[in-house]
Amino acid sequence: MRFAAESQRRVEAALDQFLPSEHTHPARLHRAMRYSILGGGKRIRPLLVYAAGHVAGAPDNALDAAACAVECIHAYSLIHDDLPAMDDDELRRGKPTCHKAFGEAEAILAGDALQALAFYVLAHALDGADSSRRLKMVELLAQAAGSRGMVGGQSIDLAAVGRELDIAELEDMHIHKTGALIRASVLLGALCANRVEDRDRNALDHFGKYIGLAFQVQDDILDVTATTATLGKRAGADQALNKPTYPSLLGVNGARERARELHQAALDSLEPLGPRAGLLRGLSSYIIDRTA
Amino acid sequence: MRFAAESQRRVEAALDQFLPSEHTHPARLHRAMRYSILGGGKRIRPLLVYAAGHVAGAPDNALDAAACAVECIHAYSLIHDDLPAMDDDELRRGKPTCHKAFGEAEAILAGDALQALAFYVLAHALDGADSSRRLKMVELLAQAAGSRGMVGGQSIDLAAVGRELDIAELEDMHIHKTGALIRASVLLGALCANRVEDRDRNALDHFGKYIGLAFQVQDDILDVTATTATLGKRAGADQALNKPTYPSLLGVNGARERARELHQAALDSLEPLGPRAGLLRGLSSYIIDRTA
Repeated sequence: MRFAAESQRRVEAALDQFLPSEHTHPARLHRAMRYSILGGGKRIRPLLVYAAGHVAGAPDNALDAAACAVECIHAYSLIHDDLPAMDDDELRRGKPTCHKAFGEAEAILAGDALQALAFYVLAHALDGADSSRRLKMVELLAQAAGSRGMVGGQSIDLAAVGRELDIAELEDMHIHKTGALIRASVLLGALCANRVEDRDRNALDHFGKYIGLAFQVQDDILDVTATTATLGKRAGADQALNKPTYPSLLGVNGARERARELHQAALDSLEPLGPRAGLLRGLSSYIIDRTA
Repeated sequence: MRFAAESQRRVEAALDQFLPSEHTHPARLHRAMRYSILGGGKRIRPLLVYAAGHVAGAPDNALDAAACAVECIHAYSLIHDDLPAMDDDELRRGKPTCHKAFGEAEAILAGDALQALAFYVLAHALDGADSSRRLKMVELLAQAAGSRGMVGGQSIDLAAVGRELDIAELEDMHIHKTGALIRASVLLGALCANRVEDRDRNALDHFGKYIGLAFQVQDDILDVTATTATLGKRAGADQALNKPTYPSLLGVNGARERARELHQAALDSLEPLGPRAGLLRGLSSYIIDRTA
Protein backbone atom coordinates (compact mmCIF):
# COMPACT_ATOMS: atom_id res chain seq x y z
CA MET A 1 0.00 0.00 0.00
CA ARG A 2 1.71 3.16 -1.23
CA PHE A 3 -0.01 5.45 1.27
CA ALA A 4 1.31 3.29 4.11
CA ALA A 5 4.88 3.30 2.83
CA GLU A 6 4.82 7.05 2.24
CA SER A 7 3.32 7.80 5.64
CA GLN A 8 5.82 5.52 7.34
CA ARG A 9 8.66 7.46 5.71
CA ARG A 10 7.01 10.71 6.64
CA VAL A 11 6.55 9.90 10.34
CA GLU A 12 10.08 8.49 10.55
CA ALA A 13 11.48 11.78 9.27
CA ALA A 14 9.28 13.80 11.60
CA LEU A 15 10.26 11.71 14.62
CA ASP A 16 13.92 12.09 13.71
CA GLN A 17 13.39 15.84 13.74
CA PHE A 18 11.29 16.09 16.95
CA LEU A 19 13.58 13.86 19.01
CA PRO A 20 16.67 15.47 20.52
CA SER A 21 19.82 14.33 18.72
CA GLU A 22 22.07 11.55 20.02
CA HIS A 23 24.55 14.22 21.08
CA THR A 24 22.08 16.28 23.10
CA HIS A 25 22.84 16.17 26.82
CA PRO A 26 22.20 13.70 28.45
CA ALA A 27 23.34 11.71 25.42
CA ARG A 28 22.77 8.20 26.74
CA LEU A 29 19.10 8.89 27.48
CA HIS A 30 18.56 10.42 24.05
CA ARG A 31 20.27 7.45 22.43
CA ALA A 32 17.93 5.09 24.28
CA MET A 33 14.89 7.11 23.19
CA ARG A 34 15.98 7.20 19.55
CA TYR A 35 16.95 3.53 19.59
CA SER A 36 13.45 2.60 20.74
CA ILE A 37 11.36 4.72 18.44
CA LEU A 38 13.31 5.17 15.19
CA GLY A 39 13.99 2.68 12.44
CA GLY A 40 10.91 0.59 12.07
CA GLY A 41 7.63 -0.50 13.45
CA LYS A 42 4.39 -0.71 11.55
CA ARG A 43 3.39 2.83 12.60
CA ILE A 44 -0.27 1.80 12.61
CA ARG A 45 -1.27 4.72 14.85
CA PRO A 46 0.48 7.40 12.77
CA LEU A 47 -1.02 5.85 9.63
CA LEU A 48 -4.46 6.28 11.16
CA VAL A 49 -3.67 9.89 12.11
CA TYR A 50 -2.64 10.70 8.53
CA ALA A 51 -5.52 8.83 6.90
CA ALA A 52 -8.20 10.29 9.19
CA GLY A 53 -6.62 13.72 8.80
CA HIS A 54 -6.73 13.49 5.01
CA VAL A 55 -10.37 12.47 5.14
CA ALA A 56 -11.10 15.51 7.30
CA GLY A 57 -8.99 17.86 5.18
CA ALA A 58 -6.15 18.53 7.64
CA PRO A 59 -2.79 19.94 6.50
CA ASP A 60 0.18 17.54 6.50
CA ASN A 61 2.40 19.53 8.84
CA ALA A 62 -0.21 19.50 11.62
CA LEU A 63 -0.63 15.76 11.09
CA ASP A 64 3.12 15.18 11.52
CA ALA A 65 3.00 16.45 15.11
CA ALA A 66 -0.08 14.41 16.00
CA ALA A 67 1.38 11.30 14.33
CA CYS A 68 4.63 11.69 16.29
CA ALA A 69 2.78 12.26 19.56
CA VAL A 70 0.79 9.02 19.34
CA GLU A 71 3.88 7.09 18.26
CA CYS A 72 5.83 8.48 21.26
CA ILE A 73 3.09 7.19 23.57
CA HIS A 74 3.06 3.82 21.80
CA ALA A 75 6.86 3.48 21.86
CA TYR A 76 7.08 4.37 25.56
CA SER A 77 4.40 1.79 26.37
CA LEU A 78 6.36 -0.90 24.51
CA ILE A 79 9.56 -0.05 26.41
CA HIS A 80 7.80 -0.33 29.77
CA ASP A 81 5.78 -3.37 28.70
CA ASP A 82 8.98 -5.22 27.77
CA LEU A 83 10.62 -4.64 31.20
CA PRO A 84 11.47 -7.68 33.34
CA ALA A 85 8.78 -6.70 35.87
CA MET A 86 6.21 -6.66 33.06
CA ASP A 87 6.37 -9.04 30.05
CA ASP A 88 10.14 -9.55 30.29
CA ASP A 89 10.76 -9.53 26.53
CA GLU A 90 14.17 -9.51 24.90
CA LEU A 91 13.26 -8.78 21.32
CA ARG A 92 11.30 -5.91 19.80
CA ARG A 93 11.14 -4.84 16.17
CA GLY A 94 13.83 -7.40 15.45
CA LYS A 95 16.42 -6.02 17.88
CA PRO A 96 17.15 -6.23 21.61
CA THR A 97 14.55 -4.46 23.75
CA CYS A 98 15.53 -1.12 25.27
CA HIS A 99 16.39 -2.53 28.70
CA LYS A 100 18.52 -5.26 27.08
CA ALA A 101 20.46 -2.62 25.18
CA PHE A 102 20.62 0.17 27.80
CA GLY A 103 19.79 -1.44 31.14
CA GLU A 104 16.55 -1.36 33.08
CA ALA A 105 16.95 2.03 34.74
CA GLU A 106 17.70 3.87 31.50
CA ALA A 107 14.82 2.05 29.81
CA ILE A 108 12.35 3.20 32.46
CA LEU A 109 13.60 6.76 31.97
CA ALA A 110 13.53 6.56 28.16
CA GLY A 111 9.89 5.52 28.36
CA ASP A 112 9.08 8.31 30.81
CA ALA A 113 10.78 10.89 28.61
CA LEU A 114 8.98 9.69 25.47
CA GLN A 115 5.66 10.18 27.22
CA ALA A 116 6.59 13.76 28.15
CA LEU A 117 7.80 14.35 24.59
CA ALA A 118 4.40 13.32 23.20
CA PHE A 119 2.71 16.18 25.05
CA TYR A 120 5.52 18.59 24.29
CA VAL A 121 5.17 17.92 20.56
CA LEU A 122 1.40 18.48 20.64
CA ALA A 123 1.72 21.69 22.64
CA HIS A 124 4.77 23.07 20.92
CA ALA A 125 5.11 21.86 17.37
CA LEU A 126 1.65 21.60 15.96
CA ASP A 127 1.33 24.18 13.22
CA GLY A 128 -1.89 25.27 11.66
CA ALA A 129 -4.24 24.43 14.52
CA ASP A 130 -5.67 26.97 16.95
CA SER A 131 -4.96 26.78 20.67
CA SER A 132 -8.30 25.42 21.76
CA ARG A 133 -8.09 22.53 19.30
CA ARG A 134 -4.52 21.76 20.31
CA LEU A 135 -5.58 21.76 23.95
CA LYS A 136 -8.42 19.39 23.09
CA MET A 137 -5.82 17.12 21.48
CA VAL A 138 -3.66 17.17 24.62
CA GLU A 139 -6.72 16.27 26.68
CA LEU A 140 -7.73 13.48 24.32
CA LEU A 141 -4.25 11.95 24.20
CA ALA A 142 -3.74 12.22 27.97
CA GLN A 143 -7.04 10.47 28.57
CA ALA A 144 -6.36 7.73 26.01
CA ALA A 145 -2.87 7.14 27.40
CA GLY A 146 -3.79 7.25 31.08
CA SER A 147 -5.35 5.12 33.78
CA ARG A 148 -8.73 4.93 32.10
CA GLY A 149 -7.14 4.19 28.75
CA MET A 150 -3.92 2.45 27.70
CA VAL A 151 -2.20 2.22 31.10
CA GLY A 152 -5.45 1.04 32.64
CA GLY A 153 -5.53 -1.72 30.03
CA GLN A 154 -2.05 -2.81 31.01
CA SER A 155 -3.15 -3.01 34.63
CA ILE A 156 -6.17 -5.10 33.62
CA ASP A 157 -3.73 -7.28 31.65
CA LEU A 158 -1.53 -7.76 34.73
CA ALA A 159 -4.50 -8.85 36.79
CA ALA A 160 -5.55 -11.29 34.03
CA VAL A 161 -2.34 -13.36 33.83
CA GLY A 162 -3.09 -16.93 34.79
CA ARG A 163 -6.79 -16.19 35.28
CA GLU A 164 -9.73 -17.36 33.18
CA LEU A 165 -11.36 -14.43 31.41
CA ASP A 166 -14.57 -14.52 29.48
CA ILE A 167 -14.82 -12.79 26.12
CA ALA A 168 -16.38 -9.64 27.65
CA GLU A 169 -13.48 -9.26 30.08
CA LEU A 170 -10.95 -9.87 27.33
CA GLU A 171 -12.60 -7.22 25.19
CA ASP A 172 -12.67 -4.78 28.10
CA MET A 173 -8.91 -5.28 28.49
CA HIS A 174 -8.21 -4.61 24.81
CA ILE A 175 -10.59 -1.65 24.55
CA HIS A 176 -8.32 -0.06 27.14
CA LYS A 177 -4.92 -1.49 26.29
CA THR A 178 -4.73 -0.94 22.54
CA GLY A 179 -8.18 0.33 21.59
CA ALA A 180 -8.04 3.67 23.42
CA LEU A 181 -4.86 4.91 21.71
CA ILE A 182 -5.91 3.68 18.26
CA ARG A 183 -9.29 5.36 18.64
CA ALA A 184 -7.55 8.54 19.80
CA SER A 185 -5.23 8.41 16.78
CA VAL A 186 -8.18 8.59 14.41
CA LEU A 187 -9.75 11.48 16.35
CA LEU A 188 -6.46 13.35 16.62
CA GLY A 189 -6.10 13.19 12.85
CA ALA A 190 -9.59 14.63 12.46
CA LEU A 191 -8.91 17.36 15.04
CA CYS A 192 -6.00 18.58 12.90
CA ALA A 193 -8.56 19.81 10.36
CA ASN A 194 -9.93 23.32 10.69
CA ARG A 195 -13.45 22.08 10.95
CA VAL A 196 -15.06 18.67 11.27
CA GLU A 197 -18.78 18.05 11.02
CA ASP A 198 -20.26 16.15 13.96
CA ARG A 199 -21.47 13.44 11.61
CA ASP A 200 -17.98 12.90 10.20
CA ARG A 201 -16.46 12.96 13.64
CA ASN A 202 -18.89 10.33 14.93
CA ALA A 203 -18.27 8.14 11.89
CA LEU A 204 -14.52 8.35 12.44
CA ASP A 205 -14.90 7.64 16.15
CA HIS A 206 -16.91 4.49 15.48
CA PHE A 207 -14.39 3.43 12.87
CA GLY A 208 -11.57 3.95 15.38
CA LYS A 209 -13.31 1.87 18.01
CA TYR A 210 -13.87 -1.11 15.68
CA ILE A 211 -10.53 -1.00 13.92
CA GLY A 212 -8.76 -0.84 17.30
CA LEU A 213 -10.39 -4.06 18.42
CA ALA A 214 -9.93 -5.71 15.03
CA PHE A 215 -6.24 -4.84 15.19
CA GLN A 216 -5.92 -6.55 18.57
CA VAL A 217 -7.73 -9.72 17.50
CA GLN A 218 -5.36 -9.91 14.53
CA ASP A 219 -2.41 -9.33 16.88
CA ASP A 220 -3.53 -12.25 19.04
CA ILE A 221 -3.91 -14.47 15.96
CA LEU A 222 -0.42 -13.58 14.73
CA ASP A 223 1.05 -14.36 18.14
CA VAL A 224 -0.14 -17.94 17.58
CA THR A 225 0.35 -18.35 13.84
CA ALA A 226 3.42 -16.27 12.92
CA THR A 227 7.10 -16.84 13.61
CA THR A 228 9.42 -14.78 15.77
CA ALA A 229 11.43 -13.84 12.67
CA THR A 230 8.36 -12.44 10.90
CA LEU A 231 7.04 -10.60 13.95
CA GLY A 232 10.33 -9.10 15.11
CA LYS A 233 9.21 -9.99 18.63
CA ARG A 234 8.82 -13.29 20.42
CA ALA A 235 5.98 -15.33 18.88
CA GLY A 236 3.85 -17.34 21.27
CA ALA A 237 4.59 -14.86 24.07
CA ASP A 238 0.96 -14.70 25.19
CA GLN A 239 0.73 -18.45 25.50
CA ALA A 240 4.06 -18.65 27.32
CA LEU A 241 2.75 -16.12 29.88
CA ASN A 242 -0.57 -17.97 30.05
CA LYS A 243 -2.36 -14.82 28.90
CA PRO A 244 -5.93 -15.08 27.71
CA THR A 245 -6.27 -14.24 23.99
CA TYR A 246 -8.94 -14.37 21.31
CA PRO A 247 -7.58 -17.64 19.88
CA SER A 248 -7.41 -19.20 23.37
CA LEU A 249 -11.06 -18.30 23.98
CA LEU A 250 -12.53 -18.69 20.48
CA GLY A 251 -10.02 -20.94 18.68
CA VAL A 252 -7.98 -19.60 15.75
CA ASN A 253 -10.90 -19.90 13.33
CA GLY A 254 -13.30 -18.27 15.76
CA ALA A 255 -10.84 -15.43 16.27
CA ARG A 256 -10.51 -15.01 12.48
CA GLU A 257 -14.27 -14.79 12.22
CA ARG A 258 -14.33 -12.14 14.98
CA ALA A 259 -11.63 -10.12 13.17
CA ARG A 260 -13.72 -10.25 9.99
CA GLU A 261 -16.84 -9.06 11.83
CA LEU A 262 -15.00 -6.17 13.44
CA HIS A 263 -13.37 -5.24 10.14
CA GLN A 264 -16.82 -5.13 8.54
CA ALA A 265 -18.19 -3.02 11.39
CA ALA A 266 -15.28 -0.61 10.89
CA LEU A 267 -16.03 -0.37 7.15
CA ASP A 268 -19.75 0.12 7.83
CA SER A 269 -18.90 3.01 10.17
CA LEU A 270 -17.30 4.82 7.25
CA GLU A 271 -20.50 4.79 5.14
CA PRO A 272 -21.52 8.38 5.99
CA LEU A 273 -18.17 9.60 4.67
CA GLY A 274 -18.72 8.18 1.20
CA PRO A 275 -15.81 8.04 -1.25
CA ARG A 276 -13.70 10.42 0.90
CA ALA A 277 -12.99 7.49 3.21
CA GLY A 278 -11.24 5.40 0.56
CA LEU A 279 -7.88 5.80 2.27
CA LEU A 280 -9.24 4.57 5.61
CA ARG A 281 -10.89 1.61 3.89
CA GLY A 282 -7.63 0.62 2.28
CA LEU A 283 -5.77 1.13 5.53
CA SER A 284 -8.16 -1.05 7.48
CA SER A 285 -7.54 -3.93 5.06
CA TYR A 286 -3.82 -3.28 5.39
CA ILE A 287 -4.18 -3.56 9.20
CA ILE A 288 -6.32 -6.70 9.16
CA ASP A 289 -4.60 -8.61 6.37
CA ARG A 290 -1.07 -7.97 7.69
CA THR A 291 1.08 -10.98 8.49
CA ALA A 292 3.40 -9.30 11.01
CA MET B 1 3.81 28.77 58.32
CA ARG B 2 0.05 29.16 57.93
CA PHE B 3 0.16 29.64 54.16
CA ALA B 4 2.01 26.34 53.79
CA ALA B 5 -0.44 24.40 55.96
CA GLU B 6 -3.44 25.89 54.16
CA SER B 7 -1.99 25.25 50.71
CA GLN B 8 -1.10 21.69 51.67
CA ARG B 9 -4.70 21.08 52.70
CA ARG B 10 -5.91 22.74 49.52
CA VAL B 11 -3.78 20.66 47.15
CA GLU B 12 -4.63 17.46 49.03
CA ALA B 13 -8.34 18.16 48.52
CA ALA B 14 -7.80 19.03 44.86
CA LEU B 15 -5.75 15.88 44.22
CA ASP B 16 -8.41 13.78 45.92
CA GLN B 17 -10.92 15.26 43.51
CA PHE B 18 -8.83 15.03 40.30
CA LEU B 19 -7.73 11.44 40.88
CA PRO B 20 -10.15 8.69 39.88
CA SER B 21 -11.69 7.04 42.96
CA GLU B 22 -10.43 3.75 44.41
CA HIS B 23 -13.47 2.06 42.92
CA THR B 24 -12.94 3.34 39.39
CA HIS B 25 -12.02 0.54 36.97
CA PRO B 26 -9.21 -0.65 37.02
CA ALA B 27 -9.41 -0.30 40.79
CA ARG B 28 -5.99 -1.69 41.71
CA LEU B 29 -4.19 0.83 39.50
CA HIS B 30 -6.22 3.71 40.92
CA ARG B 31 -5.52 2.50 44.46
CA ALA B 32 -1.78 2.47 43.69
CA MET B 33 -1.96 5.99 42.25
CA ARG B 34 -3.89 7.36 45.23
CA TYR B 35 -1.65 5.52 47.70
CA SER B 36 1.41 7.19 46.20
CA ILE B 37 0.20 10.76 45.92
CA LEU B 38 -2.35 11.33 48.71
CA GLY B 39 -1.81 11.71 52.43
CA GLY B 40 1.36 13.62 52.87
CA GLY B 41 4.52 14.96 51.39
CA LYS B 42 5.84 18.46 51.78
CA ARG B 43 4.10 19.63 48.59
CA ILE B 44 6.94 22.06 47.91
CA ARG B 45 6.08 22.36 44.21
CA PRO B 46 2.37 23.06 44.76
CA LEU B 47 3.30 25.59 47.46
CA LEU B 48 5.43 27.39 44.90
CA VAL B 49 2.59 27.31 42.36
CA TYR B 50 0.18 28.87 44.85
CA ALA B 51 2.66 31.46 46.16
CA ALA B 52 3.85 32.56 42.69
CA GLY B 53 0.25 32.60 41.51
CA HIS B 54 -0.81 34.85 44.38
CA VAL B 55 2.05 37.21 43.64
CA ALA B 56 0.90 37.39 40.01
CA GLY B 57 -2.78 37.73 40.91
CA ALA B 58 -4.04 34.35 39.69
CA PRO B 59 -7.38 32.89 40.82
CA ASP B 60 -7.25 29.96 43.27
CA ASN B 61 -9.20 27.48 41.13
CA ALA B 62 -6.74 27.81 38.24
CA LEU B 63 -3.88 27.33 40.68
CA ASP B 64 -5.40 24.10 41.99
CA ALA B 65 -5.07 22.45 38.58
CA ALA B 66 -1.50 23.64 38.07
CA ALA B 67 -0.54 22.61 41.63
CA CYS B 68 -1.98 19.13 41.09
CA ALA B 69 -0.26 18.76 37.73
CA VAL B 70 3.23 19.43 39.11
CA GLU B 71 2.58 17.17 42.09
CA CYS B 72 1.45 14.36 39.75
CA ILE B 73 4.75 14.67 37.89
CA HIS B 74 6.70 14.74 41.15
CA ALA B 75 4.84 11.76 42.61
CA TYR B 76 5.32 9.67 39.46
CA SER B 77 9.04 10.45 39.46
CA LEU B 78 9.32 9.27 43.09
CA ILE B 79 7.53 6.00 42.29
CA HIS B 80 9.87 5.25 39.39
CA ASP B 81 12.94 6.51 41.28
CA ASP B 82 12.21 4.11 44.15
CA LEU B 83 12.02 1.03 41.86
CA PRO B 84 14.55 -1.78 42.38
CA ALA B 85 16.22 -0.96 39.03
CA MET B 86 16.67 2.65 40.18
CA ASP B 87 17.32 3.60 43.84
CA ASP B 88 15.65 0.47 45.25
CA ASP B 89 14.02 2.22 48.20
CA GLU B 90 11.52 0.63 50.54
CA LEU B 91 10.26 3.64 52.42
CA ARG B 92 8.67 6.85 51.18
CA ARG B 93 6.70 9.41 53.16
CA GLY B 94 6.87 7.05 56.12
CA LYS B 95 5.22 4.11 54.40
CA PRO B 96 6.25 1.29 52.05
CA THR B 97 7.12 2.51 48.55
CA CYS B 98 4.57 1.86 45.80
CA HIS B 99 6.34 -1.21 44.41
CA LYS B 100 6.62 -2.67 47.93
CA ALA B 101 2.89 -2.22 48.44
CA PHE B 102 1.61 -3.07 44.93
CA GLY B 103 4.42 -4.89 43.14
CA GLU B 104 6.86 -3.58 40.57
CA ALA B 105 4.66 -3.86 37.50
CA GLU B 106 1.74 -1.98 39.04
CA ALA B 107 4.15 0.67 40.37
CA ILE B 108 5.58 1.29 36.90
CA LEU B 109 2.04 1.69 35.58
CA ALA B 110 0.92 3.92 38.47
CA GLY B 111 3.82 6.25 37.69
CA ASP B 112 3.03 6.22 33.97
CA ALA B 113 -0.62 7.01 34.65
CA LEU B 114 0.20 9.86 37.02
CA GLN B 115 2.31 11.47 34.32
CA ALA B 116 -0.59 11.27 31.85
CA LEU B 117 -2.93 12.64 34.53
CA ALA B 118 -0.73 15.71 34.98
CA PHE B 119 -1.28 16.73 31.36
CA TYR B 120 -4.95 15.77 31.47
CA VAL B 121 -5.52 18.03 34.46
CA LEU B 122 -3.80 20.99 32.78
CA ALA B 123 -5.70 20.52 29.53
CA HIS B 124 -9.07 19.65 31.03
CA ALA B 125 -9.55 21.11 34.47
CA LEU B 126 -7.89 24.47 34.46
CA ASP B 127 -10.59 27.09 34.84
CA GLY B 128 -10.14 30.77 34.22
CA ALA B 129 -7.20 30.60 31.82
CA ASP B 130 -7.47 30.97 28.07
CA SER B 131 -6.45 28.18 25.70
CA SER B 132 -3.17 29.67 24.56
CA ARG B 133 -1.97 30.11 28.13
CA ARG B 134 -3.04 26.61 29.07
CA LEU B 135 -1.22 25.26 26.05
CA LYS B 136 1.88 27.20 27.10
CA MET B 137 1.59 25.53 30.51
CA VAL B 138 1.40 22.07 28.92
CA GLU B 139 4.50 22.88 26.89
CA LEU B 140 6.38 24.21 29.92
CA LEU B 141 5.51 21.22 32.09
CA ALA B 142 6.32 18.70 29.35
CA GLN B 143 9.71 20.31 28.81
CA ALA B 144 10.51 20.51 32.54
CA ALA B 145 9.46 16.89 33.07
CA GLY B 146 11.16 15.45 29.99
CA SER B 147 14.56 14.39 28.73
CA ARG B 148 16.03 17.88 28.91
CA GLY B 149 14.53 18.42 32.36
CA MET B 150 13.69 16.11 35.25
CA VAL B 151 14.05 12.74 33.50
CA GLY B 152 17.30 13.94 31.95
CA GLY B 153 18.52 14.71 35.47
CA GLN B 154 17.72 11.19 36.58
CA SER B 155 19.71 9.84 33.66
CA ILE B 156 22.65 12.08 34.60
CA ASP B 157 22.23 10.78 38.15
CA LEU B 158 22.41 7.15 36.94
CA ALA B 159 25.63 7.86 35.08
CA ALA B 160 27.09 9.54 38.18
CA VAL B 161 26.75 6.65 40.63
CA GLY B 162 30.19 5.59 41.79
CA ARG B 163 31.89 8.32 39.73
CA GLU B 164 33.69 11.41 40.93
CA LEU B 165 31.80 14.54 39.93
CA ASP B 166 33.03 18.08 40.29
CA ILE B 167 30.72 20.75 41.63
CA ALA B 168 29.76 21.95 38.15
CA GLU B 169 28.68 18.45 37.12
CA LEU B 170 26.76 17.99 40.37
CA GLU B 171 24.98 21.29 39.80
CA ASP B 172 24.17 20.34 36.21
CA MET B 173 22.57 17.14 37.51
CA HIS B 174 20.42 18.98 40.05
CA ILE B 175 19.43 21.79 37.67
CA HIS B 176 17.85 19.01 35.63
CA LYS B 177 16.71 16.54 38.26
CA THR B 178 14.91 18.77 40.74
CA GLY B 179 15.57 22.29 39.50
CA ALA B 180 13.61 22.09 36.25
CA LEU B 181 10.31 21.08 37.86
CA ILE B 182 10.64 23.55 40.74
CA ARG B 183 11.39 26.35 38.32
CA ALA B 184 8.43 25.29 36.18
CA SER B 185 6.19 25.29 39.26
CA VAL B 186 6.91 28.97 39.88
CA LEU B 187 6.29 29.86 36.22
CA LEU B 188 3.11 27.78 36.04
CA GLY B 189 1.74 29.67 39.02
CA ALA B 190 2.49 32.95 37.28
CA LEU B 191 0.93 31.72 34.01
CA CYS B 192 -2.36 31.16 35.85
CA ALA B 193 -2.71 34.94 36.11
CA ASN B 194 -4.47 36.80 33.33
CA ARG B 195 -1.47 38.94 32.67
CA VAL B 196 2.12 38.94 33.90
CA GLU B 197 4.59 41.73 33.16
CA ASP B 198 7.86 40.54 31.61
CA ARG B 199 9.77 42.06 34.51
CA ASP B 200 7.74 40.10 37.08
CA ARG B 201 8.01 36.94 35.04
CA ASN B 202 11.79 37.23 34.82
CA ALA B 203 12.06 37.92 38.54
CA LEU B 204 9.97 34.82 39.30
CA ASP B 205 11.99 32.73 36.86
CA HIS B 206 15.27 33.70 38.53
CA PHE B 207 13.75 33.04 41.92
CA GLY B 208 12.62 29.58 40.75
CA LYS B 209 16.09 28.73 39.46
CA TYR B 210 17.84 29.64 42.72
CA ILE B 211 15.25 28.19 45.08
CA GLY B 212 15.31 24.92 43.14
CA LEU B 213 19.03 24.54 43.65
CA ALA B 214 18.85 25.70 47.26
CA PHE B 215 16.18 23.09 47.89
CA GLN B 216 18.43 20.36 46.53
CA VAL B 217 21.45 21.41 48.57
CA GLN B 218 19.26 21.32 51.68
CA ASP B 219 17.96 17.89 50.63
CA ASP B 220 21.52 16.60 50.36
CA ILE B 221 22.34 18.03 53.80
CA LEU B 222 19.29 16.41 55.38
CA ASP B 223 20.21 13.06 53.83
CA VAL B 224 23.38 13.24 55.95
CA THR B 225 22.13 14.94 59.11
CA ALA B 226 18.52 13.79 59.62
CA THR B 227 17.14 10.44 60.71
CA THR B 228 15.02 8.03 58.69
CA ALA B 229 12.12 8.61 61.09
CA THR B 230 12.20 12.38 60.52
CA LEU B 231 12.60 12.12 56.75
CA GLY B 232 10.01 9.40 56.18
CA LYS B 233 12.49 7.92 53.71
CA ARG B 234 15.81 6.18 54.20
CA ALA B 235 18.42 8.62 55.58
CA GLY B 236 21.95 8.22 54.27
CA ALA B 237 20.61 6.75 51.01
CA ASP B 238 22.91 8.88 48.86
CA GLN B 239 25.99 7.75 50.77
CA ALA B 240 24.87 4.12 50.68
CA LEU B 241 24.58 4.35 46.87
CA ASN B 242 27.90 6.21 46.71
CA LYS B 243 26.16 9.15 45.07
CA PRO B 244 27.95 12.47 44.87
CA THR B 245 26.25 15.16 46.99
CA TYR B 246 26.95 18.72 48.10
CA PRO B 247 28.15 17.56 51.55
CA SER B 248 30.41 14.92 49.97
CA LEU B 249 32.00 17.58 47.75
CA LEU B 250 31.92 20.63 50.05
CA GLY B 251 31.57 19.12 53.53
CA VAL B 252 28.42 19.71 55.58
CA ASN B 253 29.45 23.25 56.54
CA GLY B 254 30.42 24.11 52.98
CA ALA B 255 27.08 22.79 51.79
CA ARG B 256 25.27 24.90 54.42
CA GLU B 257 27.13 27.94 53.19
CA ARG B 258 26.13 27.14 49.58
CA ALA B 259 22.48 26.78 50.64
CA ARG B 260 22.65 30.19 52.34
CA GLU B 261 24.15 31.80 49.22
CA LEU B 262 21.51 30.32 46.96
CA HIS B 263 18.76 31.31 49.38
CA GLN B 264 20.06 34.88 49.33
CA ALA B 265 20.23 34.88 45.52
CA ALA B 266 16.61 33.68 45.46
CA LEU B 267 15.57 36.51 47.78
CA ASP B 268 17.53 39.06 45.73
CA SER B 269 15.69 37.91 42.60
CA LEU B 270 12.42 38.93 44.23
CA GLU B 271 13.50 42.58 44.68
CA PRO B 272 11.68 43.91 41.59
CA LEU B 273 8.42 42.52 42.98
CA GLY B 274 8.61 44.56 46.17
CA PRO B 275 6.22 43.78 49.04
CA ARG B 276 3.99 41.63 46.79
CA ALA B 277 6.59 38.87 47.07
CA GLY B 278 6.25 38.50 50.84
CA LEU B 279 4.67 35.08 50.50
CA LEU B 280 7.50 33.78 48.32
CA ARG B 281 10.08 35.17 50.78
CA GLY B 282 8.43 33.36 53.65
CA LEU B 283 8.11 30.21 51.60
CA SER B 284 11.77 30.19 50.64
CA SER B 285 12.76 30.31 54.31
CA TYR B 286 10.29 27.50 54.97
CA ILE B 287 12.00 25.46 52.22
CA ILE B 288 15.55 26.15 53.37
CA ASP B 289 15.04 25.91 57.14
CA ARG B 290 13.04 22.69 56.99
CA THR B 291 14.34 19.70 58.91
CA ALA B 292 12.64 16.97 56.88
